[in-house]
Amino acid sequence: MNTRQVNIGIIGGGSMCKLHSAAYALAPLYFSPAHFIPVRKLLCDIDLDFARHSADRYQWQEVTSDWRELVLRDDIDVVDICTPNAFHKDIAIAAAEAGKMIYCEKPLALTAADAAEMLAAARRNGVRTAVAFNKRRFPAVVYARKLVDEGFIGRPLAFRGVFQSSFALDPNVPASWRFQKKIAGTGVMGDLGSHIIDVCRYLIGEFDEVIGSSEILFAERPRAEGARGIFAEQNVRSDSVPVDVEDGCWFLARMSNGAKATFEVTRLSSGKHDGLGFELWGTEGSIRWDQQRAMEIAICSEADAADRRGFKTVEMGGPHPYGNVLWEVPGFGIGISDIKSLEIHDFIHAALEGIPYQPDFHDGLQVCRICDAVMESIETRRWTKVSSSAE
Amino acid sequence: MNTRQVNIGIIGGGSMCKLHSAAYALAPLYFSPAHFIPVRKLLCDIDLDFARHSADRYQWQEVTSDWRELVLRDDIDVVDICTPNAFHKDIAIAAAEAGKMIYCEKPLALTAADAAEMLAAARRNGVRTAVAFNKRRFPAVVYARKLVDEGFIGRPLAFRGVFQSSFALDPNVPASWRFQKKIAGTGVMGDLGSHIIDVCRYLIGEFDEVIGSSEILFAERPRAEGARGIFAEQNVRSDSVPVDVEDGCWFLARMSNGAKATFEVTRLSSGKHDGLGFELWGTEGSIRWDQQRAMEIAICSEADAADRRGFKTVEMGGPHPYGNVLWEVPGFGIGISDIKSLEIHDFIHAALEGIPYQPDFHDGLQVCRICDAVMESIETRRWTKVSSSAE
Amino acid sequence: MNTRQVNIGIIGGGSMCKLHSAAYALAPLYFSPAHFIPVRKLLCDIDLDFARHSADRYQWQEVTSDWRELVLRDDIDVVDICTPNAFHKDIAIAAAEAGKMIYCEKPLALTAADAAEMLAAARRNGVRTAVAFNKRRFPAVVYARKLVDEGFIGRPLAFRGVFQSSFALDPNVPASWRFQKKIAGTGVMGDLGSHIIDVCRYLIGEFDEVIGSSEILFAERPRAEGARGIFAEQNVRSDSVPVDVEDGCWFLARMSNGAKATFEVTRLSSGKHDGLGFELWGTEGSIRWDQQRAMEIAICSEADAADRRGFKTVEMGGPHPYGNVLWEVPGFGIGISDIKSLEIHDFIHAALEGIPYQPDFHDGLQVCRICDAVMESIETRRWTKVSSSAE
Amino acid sequence: MNTRQVNIGIIGGGSMCKLHSAAYALAPLYFSPAHFIPVRKLLCDIDLDFARHSADRYQWQEVTSDWRELVLRDDIDVVDICTPNAFHKDIAIAAAEAGKMIYCEKPLALTAADAAEMLAAARRNGVRTAVAFNKRRFPAVVYARKLVDEGFIGRPLAFRGVFQSSFALDPNVPASWRFQKKIAGTGVMGDLGSHIIDVCRYLIGEFDEVIGSSEILFAERPRAEGARGIFAEQNVRSDSVPVDVEDGCWFLARMSNGAKATFEVTRLSSGKHDGLGFELWGTEGSIRWDQQRAMEIAICSEADAADRRGFKTVEMGGPHPYGNVLWEVPGFGIGISDIKSLEIHDFIHAALEGIPYQPDFHDGLQVCRICDAVMESIETRRWTKVSSSAE
Repeated sequence: MNTRQVNIGIIGGGSMCKLHSAAYALAPLYFSPAHFIPVRKLLCDIDLDFARHSADRYQWQEVTSDWRELVLRDDIDVVDICTPNAFHKDIAIAAAEAGKMIYCEKPLALTAADAAEMLAAARRNGVRTAVAFNKRRFPAVVYARKLVDEGFIGRPLAFRGVFQSSFALDPNVPASWRFQKKIAGTGVMGDLGSHIIDVCRYLIGEFDEVIGSSEILFAERPRAEGARGIFAEQNVRSDSVPVDVEDGCWFLARMSNGAKATFEVTRLSSGKHDGLGFELWGTEGSIRWDQQRAMEIAICSEADAADRRGFKTVEMGGPHPYGNVLWEVPGFGIGISDIKSLEIHDFIHAALEGIPYQPDFHDGLQVCRICDAVMESIETRRWTKVSSSAE
Repeated sequence: MNTRQVNIGIIGGGSMCKLHSAAYALAPLYFSPAHFIPVRKLLCDIDLDFARHSADRYQWQEVTSDWRELVLRDDIDVVDICTPNAFHKDIAIAAAEAGKMIYCEKPLALTAADAAEMLAAARRNGVRTAVAFNKRRFPAVVYARKLVDEGFIGRPLAFRGVFQSSFALDPNVPASWRFQKKIAGTGVMGDLGSHIIDVCRYLIGEFDEVIGSSEILFAERPRAEGARGIFAEQNVRSDSVPVDVEDGCWFLARMSNGAKATFEVTRLSSGKHDGLGFELWGTEGSIRWDQQRAMEIAICSEADAADRRGFKTVEMGGPHPYGNVLWEVPGFGIGISDIKSLEIHDFIHAALEGIPYQPDFHDGLQVCRICDAVMESIETRRWTKVSSSAE
Repeated sequence: MNTRQVNIGIIGGGSMCKLHSAAYALAPLYFSPAHFIPVRKLLCDIDLDFARHSADRYQWQEVTSDWRELVLRDDIDVVDICTPNAFHKDIAIAAAEAGKMIYCEKPLALTAADAAEMLAAARRNGVRTAVAFNKRRFPAVVYARKLVDEGFIGRPLAFRGVFQSSFALDPNVPASWRFQKKIAGTGVMGDLGSHIIDVCRYLIGEFDEVIGSSEILFAERPRAEGARGIFAEQNVRSDSVPVDVEDGCWFLARMSNGAKATFEVTRLSSGKHDGLGFELWGTEGSIRWDQQRAMEIAICSEADAADRRGFKTVEMGGPHPYGNVLWEVPGFGIGISDIKSLEIHDFIHAALEGIPYQPDFHDGLQVCRICDAVMESIETRRWTKVSSSAE
Repeated sequence: MNTRQVNIGIIGGGSMCKLHSAAYALAPLYFSPAHFIPVRKLLCDIDLDFARHSADRYQWQEVTSDWRELVLRDDIDVVDICTPNAFHKDIAIAAAEAGKMIYCEKPLALTAADAAEMLAAARRNGVRTAVAFNKRRFPAVVYARKLVDEGFIGRPLAFRGVFQSSFALDPNVPASWRFQKKIAGTGVMGDLGSHIIDVCRYLIGEFDEVIGSSEILFAERPRAEGARGIFAEQNVRSDSVPVDVEDGCWFLARMSNGAKATFEVTRLSSGKHDGLGFELWGTEGSIRWDQQRAMEIAICSEADAADRRGFKTVEMGGPHPYGNVLWEVPGFGIGISDIKSLEIHDFIHAALEGIPYQPDFHDGLQVCRICDAVMESIETRRWTKVSSSAE
């Protein structure tokens, strides 16, 4: 095998590390010929024992507890950032200065200002970047974009985006970092909202202005000592800490092309778990997708005869995006590990070949700007412009 | 048969007349013993030929082209108002002064100011009123309300209401009265939005403040000469008239109890026709309903064991609201004529017995206030308070 | 109104009487111009008190407890047979000899032999007949037939028909006549199976041979004294009676055109109530329908481009069968009363005009032959030919 | 890392090789601590060039074109058989004699007689076996089994199993080995039917007797020269070969516990691709599952209050089978590679630890017996007993 080997250094040994590891294992098997072989070289976690545990579990060759060491090592080609949000910025800037390819989990940063610094560092150093908005790799979402580009729905009129989960309904769920502003930046907006905002941008373009409303369900939650998982209750202490980020956010948007959008982003929706979905309405047709039935998409065309018009459920397979990479048979299930393998492949392949890749840090910045504008609109109670993307 | 006969006078001989006629025919068959027999006595339409045609078709005994005559006739017990919106006010006030029971199609009036005058007239004259928000008679909606009252969902956190149709996507659809402010008051807000707003009020209470956004798809449409149906193209003229009411409206609301709500009301949604639905999320559970599968409702409870939790689809039948009136077997289909027969029965029965009935003109007024507030918020671009319902 | 009046005499004052009464009330309102006005003239029940009660409730002018009187009255135009199955034969033959139009509930008779006598009497007397397989009036089913006729699915290859309910799971449900061979003839086969067999014949033609299997869940049930409803427990006695008809039947069929069919007909399916549905697979496409979502139908065409192929859900409305009779707006719900009004209209209108109508007694006979063959196949454990329909 | 390494030798370099390779890559990442590390040691294909190509693509260390060499190599621990069906027997027997763990793709053999020889060889040599009925690893299927075991559905009454695909509708699909009796044994029965039969056995036990019917759509198909994929048209020749195995099979079964079952297994169902599903009805409840929405399952319990009864859709996640191995968040998609990784793990882990594993060769044999009985019943047109599983 002479396929090029690409050494990965990953920072953060938790559940995203598990998912990324699976993706690195799968990517070269799915793409034929494999464009490169990702090598699980070095795993960093501030807790060295945990780093060792994760490296053993996810088959990484070496460990460290010092991310700066990882970033500076000559044999690392890609820096993969799986830490809580607050640490993305420093790592990404250091990685950019070290000339690495950077693959960063979402949201890109705590604020648009931070994200802008990260983008500037990447540009200054000419490095390739990716932000892990993995929804863009679902075959159905790529298919939707293709339909939009081909004019299937005509001019977009309206978008409804939701990302609903339910875990915050339980008052005993501890105040992990996702409930703390200084580490997470925002609550559901960055965690879930950023995904559906990115999908909306991907499908119909930039946001003009927004206005929203939000909710914190429980003002305090049990303190979590080093809890890593969303639901992790293992190290819950008996005292409480304040929750200072939103559990639910509802907002309207006016898109630059005039389309209207509504969003509902929560961890308060009983019965929903990973409930991202959208409906996109245009002058000539419409598209609906729900991640919980990820391999299906429903499309409707006004061009159909009046007595044969309706929503058609198309199952993704051989004739659809990534059909030749994954499985020919529609309905031959694709999971989140598969989706991440597409993401990882597409980014690194594009970086190696010098071809365009999105979503990159610029996209990550734009999403931060939209989140910031929503947050500001909640505070000021006014329609709030999203900063220009001219930068 | 000694069952009391109740004479109905209906105003407007179009498609609502057809539906109300079916309901009058069915109501006494469904309720046992029949509390009263509605007699299709007098039909009024400003076009006397059309009145004759409709009376023949829908089995009304007499016709007139003068609604004042109808309102004043001693032998008329119920005035049923099926005219375009602009005519509701004068008729209802006259009917109130004539001491009639009044059953008025929705929306109650062009504006909250008009609706308030109608309510005042009804109260002054001590007459019983109903506004035809028929969604409150769907067994599944009554069931949802019962669940809310019993605490099934806990404290309501969020509501998403939609009412989507698609007929305005076709530029050849003529400018019937539903596209003209002076007759319709608003576009989709009064026509469709009023229904879903009423459902939201019914389920979780009053609105505190709103902010919205709207869209007119085509600024002009072909002139319709006397077109009666929504889609009627029979009398379309070659010239155009301006459209001055919205085809789509998207808005956020904050409810008085703190719950958040989002609404999407359109005649621009490809593939949707009579697409009213809601999702209601609470601290303990959630409820979802879609009128297009009207006899089903999905409910989820956080009280279920973690491994047995999910949305349960309950089919309305014998054990549910109106189960003993309609059909014992769940799934034995119920149509819109059936629903209207429940509405007509419940209203007139309540009026005859002196027991409470809702939705009445006060509810109609509240919905007008909310629509007015949404319209104002679009103009002012600000969160807008809904006037107090203290009146 | 000069529209012809048609006098109806109905036999059996139970739940089918309620449904037929609603249909008679609705039919002239839906069809414009009304082709005839059905008059609810005479209601017969062997229990005269119950006859009076039903006549009052369902607005029939006169009552009798003697069906022979009804059949012989000169002023009765249509004899509507809503009795338990065992009584269909004598009444229908007498009605035929009296020259009446005959509208008979399903299944037509206890056996094919009985049904053949009924058909012979009708033919001998030149009277018009209908058997109440109402599924043929669902807009979606008519639409399916139209698609088949137009070649949309190509050559039919396979059909799966189900009619599932659950009421026999409860051992306390008493042994109403539906559990007794001498009155019902068969169990679920005649009650539910006849409906789905008729749908299959309607869509793809005659049956060649069948083989099946059946099940009786409880060998005994509480005696029901005069119980009228399926679930009626009001007059349950403490002793038991044997159940001698099947609660579930599963069978295969080979159709005359070579297509294969599977059937599942039960009152043993937890969670199902009125669960009739089919899937029809052909060389060029397929069709799926479920009565519990009656106004939708899913269609798939192999002619669609490979990347745009899938099941399309079409909602019945204006452009579809009966769209001009009922409601223009797809999704504007249609219930069982509406469906029966179409059936009653179509039959009587056809009879008055001398135009063809199906399903008639010949169709009723064919369905009995298929049921008989299934029953025989269960006994003999062999593939059993369905008698020729040449008669 | 001291985790035990297990060397795999795989035979057959086609699409199943791709899938198994992905599974070997994933298994140790998902299970923590990893019980063993599967090493992709040796890949065999009769076409050595293709073997090299596949080994490169799927990351196997060595290649051979001689399966006997593979089977005899001392450093191979597991023989993984991914060849067309006809070759399973000789390889498996040789592998048994060489003392290997054997993991064989389904169906186990061309006939029950062959399968019995394979089982005997395995028993004689005391080797551990697995047959790749992967449906038993879907969390929802394991959950269904758990519900059955706990009595959730009471006594099983009926099962409906389907496995529908559509690829044989296209006459241009060439006669790959799946269309030839001497290599495939049967058509859809072995390919698809074996899966759903195994699911039925897993959930409710042994088959007593069966009767069926079958169909070959096109008697001839274009000759395929070395075509490897189902749809592969790359090497299609202009001449035709006869098709001697069924494209569709419909059958009834009586289970040993008295339950009735119907099956529909086709490659003729327009709109279906990988459409395996079942409905299972019992005296106390029911369960429905469709592989196309694999992470959902619908359950209904008669124990629920009458007004709260219905099908509940439960999404598999943390609280469900494999929830701690895969992803905590329900709806976080799981694909076929994930499922196969569970299968591969469970088998090899059980073999290493000496704990029970199913489905093994005995299960594979039982499924062959059922398939044989169905085939015989088609020929003899009689109910056919399934041979005893006492062996």
